[in-house]
Order: sequence, then structure tokens, then C-alpha cells
Amino acid sequence: MKLTCIQENLNFGLQSTGHLVNKNVNLPILNNVLVEATTGGLKLSSTNLEIGISCQVRCKVEVEGSFTVDAKLLSDYVNLLPNEQINIDLEKDNNLKISCRNSNTKIKGIAADDFPVIPVIEKVNPYKIKIKDFKKALAQVIFAVSVSETRPEISGVLMSFNKLEKNKLFMVGTDSYRLTEKNLPVEGNDEEKEVIVPMKTLQETLRILNGLKDQATAEEDLEIYLSENQILFTCGGVELISRLIEGQFPDYKQIIPTETKTRAVIATSELTKAIKTVALFSKTGIFDINLIFDPSKGMTMRATNTQVGESKSDLEVAYEGDANETTLNYRYILDGLSNITADEVELGLVDSNIPFIMKPKGDDSYTYIIMPIKQ
Amino acid sequence: MKLTCIQENLNFGLQSTGHLVNKNVNLPILNNVLVEATTGGLKLSSTNLEIGISCQVRCKVEVEGSFTVDAKLLSDYVNLLPNEQINIDLEKDNNLKISCRNSNTKIKGIAADDFPVIPVIEKVNPYKIKIKDFKKALAQVIFAVSVSETRPEISGVLMSFNKLEKNKLFMVGTDSYRLTEKNLPVEGNDEEKEVIVPMKTLQETLRILNGLKDQATAEEDLEIYLSENQILFTCGGVELISRLIEGQFPDYKQIIPTETKTRAVIATSELTKAIKTVALFSKTGIFDINLIFDPSKGMTMRATNTQVGESKSDLEVAYEGDANETTLNYRYILDGLSNITADEVELGLVDSNIPFIMKPKGDDSYTYIIMPIKQ
Repeated sequence: MKLTCIQENLNFGLQSTGHLVNKNVNLPILNNVLVEATTGGLKLSSTNLEIGISCQVRCKVEVEGSFTVDAKLLSDYVNLLPNEQINIDLEKDNNLKISCRNSNTKIKGIAADDFPVIPVIEKVNPYKIKIKDFKKALAQVIFAVSVSETRPEISGVLMSFNKLEKNKLFMVGTDSYRLTEKNLPVEGNDEEKEVIVPMKTLQETLRILNGLKDQATAEEDLEIYLSENQILFTCGGVELISRLIEGQFPDYKQIIPTETKTRAVIATSELTKAIKTVALFSKTGIFDINLIFDPSKGMTMRATNTQVGESKSDLEVAYEGDANETTLNYRYILDGLSNITADEVELGLVDSNIPFIMKPKGDDSYTYIIMPIKQ
Repeated sequence: MKLTCIQENLNFGLQSTGHLVNKNVNLPILNNVLVEATTGGLKLSSTNLEIGISCQVRCKVEVEGSFTVDAKLLSDYVNLLPNEQINIDLEKDNNLKISCRNSNTKIKGIAADDFPVIPVIEKVNPYKIKIKDFKKALAQVIFAVSVSETRPEISGVLMSFNKLEKNKLFMVGTDSYRLTEKNLPVEGNDEEKEVIVPMKTLQETLRILNGLKDQATAEEDLEIYLSENQILFTCGGVELISRLIEGQFPDYKQIIPTETKTRAVIATSELTKAIKTVALFSKTGIFDINLIFDPSKGMTMRATNTQVGESKSDLEVAYEGDANETTLNYRYILDGLSNITADEVELGLVDSNIPFIMKPKGDDSYTYIIMPIKQ
């Protein structure tokens, strides 16, 4: 193997594929990146056996070949090199020789034969999504996904294509204490499909999308292909393939209240500050905060920790509907508020036993609900 | 106790005094801030028995009195309040009641009688230092101080007033593997004094100085008072008093080479990048990097890790003096480079057994030396 390429291109490929790799003691080759030079160009690949990422890098191949080296070492090294030409040469003693300007390095590695095969999906008729839309949607949904593996079906995000609405992708995340639902436009394939995608897969996808140049983000679409048990994301020359989660996602629509008894609109920043202030006095480990809608005072937040003290804050809020109250985990409220980019947030409440609703004002594409703490 | 003050003033006082406090299980009152209201105003104090910090806060006292409450809780709470008038009232049931606009809070606390006495130094004839100078000097010295307590005399910074040079403060830090020496102008008291100040004390002082408004930093001096075994720093209404470290600081002057055999000047950023690149191949746990001055190549950096690979980088540097080489811990080199704000750094080398010297180009007030790794 012998090739030359530009640092910027190689660096992008290594940053895209490299992060996936964790120290794997049982199968050391999983810590490596597969470097394959063919007449078609240079391909970098990494895998943790659940997710595989590959990236095409523009280069000039003199001698074809393939090899694997420690992914973190190679990407850290290339990241520090100047943006100039890099020469890569696989020496006979199984060292990958890398030269760039005044720097010369040899990295030991493992033969490519032992590298696991990454699954393939036929790339026909993709779902197409604006990268900007998908990045925002992911951030709004992913934080609510269960980190526990006890219920695998909620350890990922439900992605529902064209099923609830034509040309819409619905994304839903929950940990059974709170739930987010976001919908966004989808083009291309108009087939109805519903899959559960592991959180880690979506985190890696988000990382790759964040690494794209602004130009690519503005011009290109994210393309999504599905097979029986795999999902493939492609954009900007990077492909990420992952297993899907088997199982049935909860029938979440039934727990989102369709009618509320109390409705208020509040400045997002003001509510955030009031919650943080009062929350200092919530009970240790329970994180409870009491929200009271009272015609004489507007909205009051209150918390009491018998060992520490008590606090309350009144917000002058004109609300519609009944006097009402509920008790919520304040950390869940703050999680929701930090993912609402609108200046104002709409709150909706039925009663203290029914989930509390938050939405960005004037944006029906996003709904966040929080289960109440029973008193 | 009953008083009113402005949030901004109270917040500054609590941020200045509050950080010192750590969870102290044996003596819970050390987690608290002492709030004392007298006709003279409001005084906040905290202590960990080694360091005491106090701050005067402008306020209107209606009823004198004193009390202690959890310092972190009070400062977190006040920090989130709007910059408006705050009313503080000690209720009969030993709750500190705090009201500000629409927020009302009661915090439980402990009577002030149990709060430890903070030592006092008579404030006569201070050493005076420009705050800006002292902040820069601290950053340049403190990182090299030993974090181990096995040799208490090097677990702090040597502060030598007027002794090595009139109207100069010399500050020295070492962990026996590297050493920094910085000198800066000192006015006021011209007495010769030498003390060792604990690292934690200087970290707290730096934190307080960083919290001062730009106006105070530009206009006011830091004042330093010494007693037999205490040091007092005052600025912007904040006083920090600390014990000194007993013992004899090493006679460090003798290990700083006065003449070198090889001298080079290099762009700080270029050297930093070259070190980081090659250092990826240094030996695990040894962090060794080889610096070679060779007339045909300029300066070469080299590292070899038999399990990982090897790397070298040539810098086109015109050096004066002999061909030479040494082996250093690359992390120590990077520590020094990150505290040199000059564009260029001067390197000086005698041989591979004598400490390596780094200085900002054209600035004799700062010297950083690194002991070589013996081969």
C-alpha cells in the first residue's frame, strides 16, 4: 500500500470513523481503523460490532493494499499535522510509514484480514432529510431516552416514517418518566416504516453531522436506508450502519393529553431561572418542585426540604382555565427548557395525576411531557 | 438581625468567601458562611481552619446580629436572584428569611457562637503589587508546585520580598522535577522577607482576584501583610488570611544553569505543535521525548514506544553553540509553553545531565527549568 493525500481530507475521515473506537481488551483489532487503498481511492472503516462507520477519502493510490492501526493514535497524529500533503506507505516489516513536511512516523499495526466484516445495505430509494432539521430533532429527543438497558425497547429512539403523517418522520424518546416527540419533513422514499434506533447510534450520527463543513450541512441531505434489522445513514462521504433494536415501542400517543384544563405561556428564560432558584430547596434525591396555578398570584413554584429550608417564587403569568397544581422532577423541567429554542414556552396541565405538557410557543412539531411525582 | 442590600454586592461577597468551603463532616459549621450585621455594615466570613476569607458588603442594617448558613446554598441562591434589593431577616425560629422581588426563602442555620475565630494580622505597612502582575505571576508559578505533601516545604510557593533584589518579589515553585521562577515589582514595605505560601492559599487568592471587576483590577493594588506564621492578602474589600508553611525552601538558585552550551529561539506555537505530535509516541508512563540539536538538521524531536511505533519531527532552527541533546518529560515542556505568552521562546541546554532552560524571548523575569530524564 502506498498513497498520498491531503491532511484535511484524511483528518476528516479519521475524525468521522475514529470516535467509535473504545478500548476493547478482548478483541484488540476493534481499537483499530481499517485503511484500504484501491484504485477507487482510500476507504477508512471502524466498527464496534454493533455500529460500523466508513468514509471515502480523496487520494492518489500508487500501490493498492490494506492494513489496520490504532485508530485513536492515527487520528490524534494526523489531526496535529499541517494541512499539507501526507505520504503513507506500508513497509515490509508491517509498519505504516507516514510523512508530512518535516515529520516522519512509523506506526505498528495488525493485518487487515482479521478485521470484522461490516454489514451492507443496498442503497436504493433513501429517505432524505435536511441535515439541519435532523440535528435539531436529535438534540430535542435524545436526552429523554432511557440510559438503562432493562427495557431495551425504550433504550433507543422510535423513528416512524410516513406512518403518522405522510412525508413526516416522527422521532420519540422516553425513559418512562418523561417523553419527547418531534416531527420533521422527510422526502424521497414514501414507504411507511417504524424502527427503534439505539441511542449510541444516533449520538455517533450527530457527532458525524456536527463534523461536516457548514457547506455540506447547508447543501446536502442526510440519506437513510433501512433493511430488516439494520439502518444506514449516509452524508458527506461518510456511512454509518447500525443494528436496530427489536421489540415494540410503547403506545405513547395514549399518554399525551389531548385536552388540558390549565394553559399558560411563559418566557423560557424567566421560567428556567425561577425553577433553578426554587429547586435549590427540593428534597435530596427526589428533586421535587411544586407548580401552583392560582388566580390571585399567577404561577407559583415552591419547594421544601425540611433539613435545609424552603423557597417559593411567584411568576406573574396570565393563564387560561382552572386553578391547578402538580409536582414534577425539576431536572426534567430544565432538560425540556434547555432544548426549547423558542423565546416562550407553552405549558399545559390536566391535573396532578396526568402528565404535564411543554411545547415551544407556536411550534406544534415538538412536544415534551413529564410524568408527575405522586404526593 | 435585619438588613437590606443589593444582590450584586451580596453576590460578590458570597462568591468571594463561599468557594473555600468543602463538605466537612466532622465540623459541619465549616460548611457555613458567617453573616455578621453591625452598625459598620455586613461582613461575610468563611474558613477551613487553614485559610480564612472575609468580605465587607455594603448594606443598610436595621437590626444588628449574626448567624451562619450553608455557604454553597446561600451563594447558589443569591447568584440566581435578579440584581435588585434583597431583604434579609433572622427569624425567631432560627431561619434566615431572604426576600427579593417575587422570591421568598427560609434557610435553616447554626448560631454564630460556634463559628471558629479567624486570626487577625495588624494591617500596617503592606507590600503592594499590581493585581494584573500578580495574577500573571501566579499562573506562571503555581502549576509547577508539588501536589504531594511528602515534602511540605515544596508544597507551596516561595515568596521572597526585596531579598534577591530591592523592590522585587521573587516567586518560585517546584515539584523537584521542574522549577519556575518569576519576579515582579513590589512597592510599599521594603523589608526583606521570605515565606512559603500553601498552593491552596494562592489558588484561592487567584480565584478572588479573577472575580474582581475589571475596574478594581486596573486601579487597585493587592496588599500583602506578614506575621510570624500568617499571610494576609487584601483587595477590593476581600481579605484572605492563611497559615504559612514552616521549613526551608530548597536553595534553588544553584540548580539554574548560569551558562549554556546550546541556545535556540523558536516560535512558541510551532514548538508546542511539534512536541504534541511526536509525544504521541513517547513511552507509556515515562512521557519521554528526545531533543537533538544537530548542525545539519536544526532541532529534531524524537520519541519511540516499541509497542506503538516511533516518530520524529525536524524544526528548522538556527541555534547557537554546540551540537547537543537531552531527554525530557514532554508534559513538563507543554506546561511551560502554555504559560509563556510571548510569541517566541528561548531554549538553553548545557548537556543531558543538567536542567533544560526555557524563557519567554526578551523577558528575563521568568525562568522555567526541567530536570532531564537520565538515559
